[in-house]
Amino acid sequence: MQKKAEYTLAELAGHLDAELRGEAEFVVNGLASLPDAGGSDISFLSDRKYLSTLKTSRAGAVILKPEHAAEAPGNVLISDNPYLGFAKISHLFDGRPVLGKGVHQSALVAEDADIDASAAVGPNTVIESGARIAADVEIGAGCFIGAHVEIGRGTILAPNVTLYHGVCVGQNCIVHSGAVIGADGFGFANQQGKWEKIAQLGGVSIANDVEIGANSTIDRGALQDTVIETGVKIDNQVMVAHNVRIGSHTAIAACVGISGSTEIGSHCMIAGGVGFAGHLKICDRVFITAMSFVTGSIKEPGSYSSGTAMMPTPQWKKNSVRLKQLDELTKQVRQLEKQITKLRDQDQ
Amino acid sequence: MQKKAEYTLAELAGHLDAELRGEAEFVVNGLASLPDAGGSDISFLSDRKYLSTLKTSRAGAVILKPEHAAEAPGNVLISDNPYLGFAKISHLFDGRPVLGKGVHQSALVAEDADIDASAAVGPNTVIESGARIAADVEIGAGCFIGAHVEIGRGTILAPNVTLYHGVCVGQNCIVHSGAVIGADGFGFANQQGKWEKIAQLGGVSIANDVEIGANSTIDRGALQDTVIETGVKIDNQVMVAHNVRIGSHTAIAACVGISGSTEIGSHCMIAGGVGFAGHLKICDRVFITAMSFVTGSIKEPGSYSSGTAMMPTPQWKKNSVRLKQLDELTKQVRQLEKQITKLRDQDQ
Amino acid sequence: MQKKAEYTLAELAGHLDAELRGEAEFVVNGLASLPDAGGSDISFLSDRKYLSTLKTSRAGAVILKPEHAAEAPGNVLISDNPYLGFAKISHLFDGRPVLGKGVHQSALVAEDADIDASAAVGPNTVIESGARIAADVEIGAGCFIGAHVEIGRGTILAPNVTLYHGVCVGQNCIVHSGAVIGADGFGFANQQGKWEKIAQLGGVSIANDVEIGANSTIDRGALQDTVIETGVKIDNQVMVAHNVRIGSHTAIAACVGISGSTEIGSHCMIAGGVGFAGHLKICDRVFITAMSFVTGSIKEPGSYSSGTAMMPTPQWKKNSVRLKQLDELTKQVRQLEKQITKLRDQDQ
Repeated sequence: MQKKAEYTLAELAGHLDAELRGEAEFVVNGLASLPDAGGSDISFLSDRKYLSTLKTSRAGAVILKPEHAAEAPGNVLISDNPYLGFAKISHLFDGRPVLGKGVHQSALVAEDADIDASAAVGPNTVIESGARIAADVEIGAGCFIGAHVEIGRGTILAPNVTLYHGVCVGQNCIVHSGAVIGADGFGFANQQGKWEKIAQLGGVSIANDVEIGANSTIDRGALQDTVIETGVKIDNQVMVAHNVRIGSHTAIAACVGISGSTEIGSHCMIAGGVGFAGHLKICDRVFITAMSFVTGSIKEPGSYSSGTAMMPTPQWKKNSVRLKQLDELTKQVRQLEKQITKLRDQDQ
Repeated sequence: MQKKAEYTLAELAGHLDAELRGEAEFVVNGLASLPDAGGSDISFLSDRKYLSTLKTSRAGAVILKPEHAAEAPGNVLISDNPYLGFAKISHLFDGRPVLGKGVHQSALVAEDADIDASAAVGPNTVIESGARIAADVEIGAGCFIGAHVEIGRGTILAPNVTLYHGVCVGQNCIVHSGAVIGADGFGFANQQGKWEKIAQLGGVSIANDVEIGANSTIDRGALQDTVIETGVKIDNQVMVAHNVRIGSHTAIAACVGISGSTEIGSHCMIAGGVGFAGHLKICDRVFITAMSFVTGSIKEPGSYSSGTAMMPTPQWKKNSVRLKQLDELTKQVRQLEKQITKLRDQDQ
Repeated sequence: MQKKAEYTLAELAGHLDAELRGEAEFVVNGLASLPDAGGSDISFLSDRKYLSTLKTSRAGAVILKPEHAAEAPGNVLISDNPYLGFAKISHLFDGRPVLGKGVHQSALVAEDADIDASAAVGPNTVIESGARIAADVEIGAGCFIGAHVEIGRGTILAPNVTLYHGVCVGQNCIVHSGAVIGADGFGFANQQGKWEKIAQLGGVSIANDVEIGANSTIDRGALQDTVIETGVKIDNQVMVAHNVRIGSHTAIAACVGISGSTEIGSHCMIAGGVGFAGHLKICDRVFITAMSFVTGSIKEPGSYSSGTAMMPTPQWKKNSVRLKQLDELTKQVRQLEKQITKLRDQDQ
């Protein structure tokens, strides 16, 4: 399906492989939430707690589950996963400008770089010696693609992305602006109080279907590669240190920092602002709540947390002082227990 | 007033609309704190706790409050808000180089972009189709201005700023280097363990008088815009997720992360390193102390905190262990209370 | 020694000034950890806990301490600090591409900038008026070097670094991609609820042998300079606010934020994600554990921490609720103590 301004419901039903109830030729020209939708928008209902908004929405059509179809006043597309349907349809209405194929005349490409004819290279982008850019790749303006970088088919780099030499990015990835991949890991040996740099000889290996957010950084490995497996999604301002490995289909929200050599399993979800100490092993299917500090390895799937809940500052100050005395308090309670036991024994 | 090396006290008094006591023709050629000021510098005193430094300062003139004027040994400018006076005078001594008007010959500007003749566009900057750049705008070197971006009168972009397509920036804003505005929000639907991307169809709408720090990121909305209201000040490395709204004149210090769809009110002050969970509503005039995690909506103005105070690590380790047992400890105390009550009853 | 693919053990021993036991003409062509090393790799053993891997490693040679030399089955280089030896040898195997000397034809250099003939300036880099670039400096592609910037001998800037006007960087420094040095400090005066910007008139002064990581930001001072002393190592995504001073040979891991005017001593180690409040003084030789919030000045060398340990989320939730009641709990325990004392007195 080509991107255009309008789709009939029949076209959308075909795109989703969904059952259509209503006017097949009804024309949809936008996508919106139930409360915001206008008469020619399509919307979606994935959670029954929003069922009441279905009645009052002006949406021209709604994607919803079979069990809610009867409650919709108008056109519906029936899908087992309406939110997924929404995701799939969203791309039909995406106005993102696409770079024209070919290398912009202002780009500076090394003679021995291998750029597929179907790839697009934006203005002022620099591509160094030995780089290999596959078919249908799109590299935005002002990027730096270091020597011997490899980029797989269909991957998109937004403007102003930096890939250091030797970085490998798979197919159908998206890397957002300001991301820096392959900078030196933070490795030093101490010599009588001074830091002697350790050259970072490894690379960064990114598999297919990975997304990396704006201003995130993924450092190259010390001796071996830093590895991001298939389908990992990384938000903005995430820091991945050298020799980290992130398992397939793990999602990492913004402002997370992962220290060197930590391995995170597959299908994990890491909420925003989480920090990981180094050299940990986190098993598959772990969920870490926001702003937690992961201090040890995790062997059981499940949800983990650290930190403290928000309070009004005066209450927080009092409790913070008490927290500094908590060990002492615990000992006092132990002491009280003994005294009470003794008293009770005397009483008997 | 033109920027130059020197100003008479009379000129500065006029600039501040302040009362001058002393030599009207005294020449000031710099701005410094009271302890650091030399004889031809102007300084300021805003807090009476620094009153003692007034006597020993070599400053050629001092901006101060009416009640402190009699205590100054030399020239003074009298102002109800000396710190504000300092702020206003600071710009007179700012040596920041200003880009010459016009488009640098190395800039790459789409034919249908609309650039006001009084705007300055720096070297190697790329401006895409349909962008509209108003009067007196200054865009530094190496910026990327996406298709249909709008930038209002007098706004300054430092070098290497990235604005994705469709971003709107108001008047008299400042955006620092490395900032990325309009990258995709972090939105995915899960399909049997894999993440299906949701195209981010909204934009970013930034009002007038907003400042955005270096390497900060503001994501575009999923369906509607991410919104930054008038006069908001955002420091470096701040992350604003999709569909966040930040109310007017709120100030946000460095390294803050705001999760999707959270709304922060007006005149709030968010200290450094704070995190916000998603879908919260924070009312006006809220202050959050540094490195707190805001876990819930806030309905009352005031100061809020989370986290724990710093301790020597051995003490911290002991208390951390106890914190993991705090629920148990609390129950033990409840138990002790009962036992004591029972003992007391027996004794009577 | 020229960089090449292979070195004899004798050459490496000479490079390290280490004692060689084994075949002087043995040819080494790589560097690897003991478990990963192949037969022509050199490896190292710095900690006796890895002694068992020494026997099973296939490494062609090993750098190790005198006391472990007898336990190695093959070639050894004997050094008091094997990890330092590893660091020194790592640079011999570094494949980092080096920019050719001279200014790339696409770079835009102001006529009055002073670029040493031995310096290398990459494609599309912009160097403004009055900048001074010393011998053997390497400036990557797409950098912005503001007016009157000074860069000392042998310093390397990776691609896409931004130095605002007047920033001074010393000799033999490394600055990674996306770093922004000299952006405005976050300074505003409040005028009836609105923020009036304070021009940031200071600069940034960076001494020799400093490394600054990818996407880190170091703001210019308000009136005087922000100062980074000799040998400081700063990781990625670190935020250094205006007028901070960092003492010599201090190492700062990723995602640290340092608020304005805080001074950190020499030989400190700051782990990842730490935050510092403003206007603090931290003495020399302080270690801060990861994700701590440094709320006050530190006068004694040693290790300091804040935060809470990770727990399964259900346990964390219970304890978090209790933490909000900790002040109350402490008071209850005090109360119980009194009651018990009273009971005991009655019993006697």
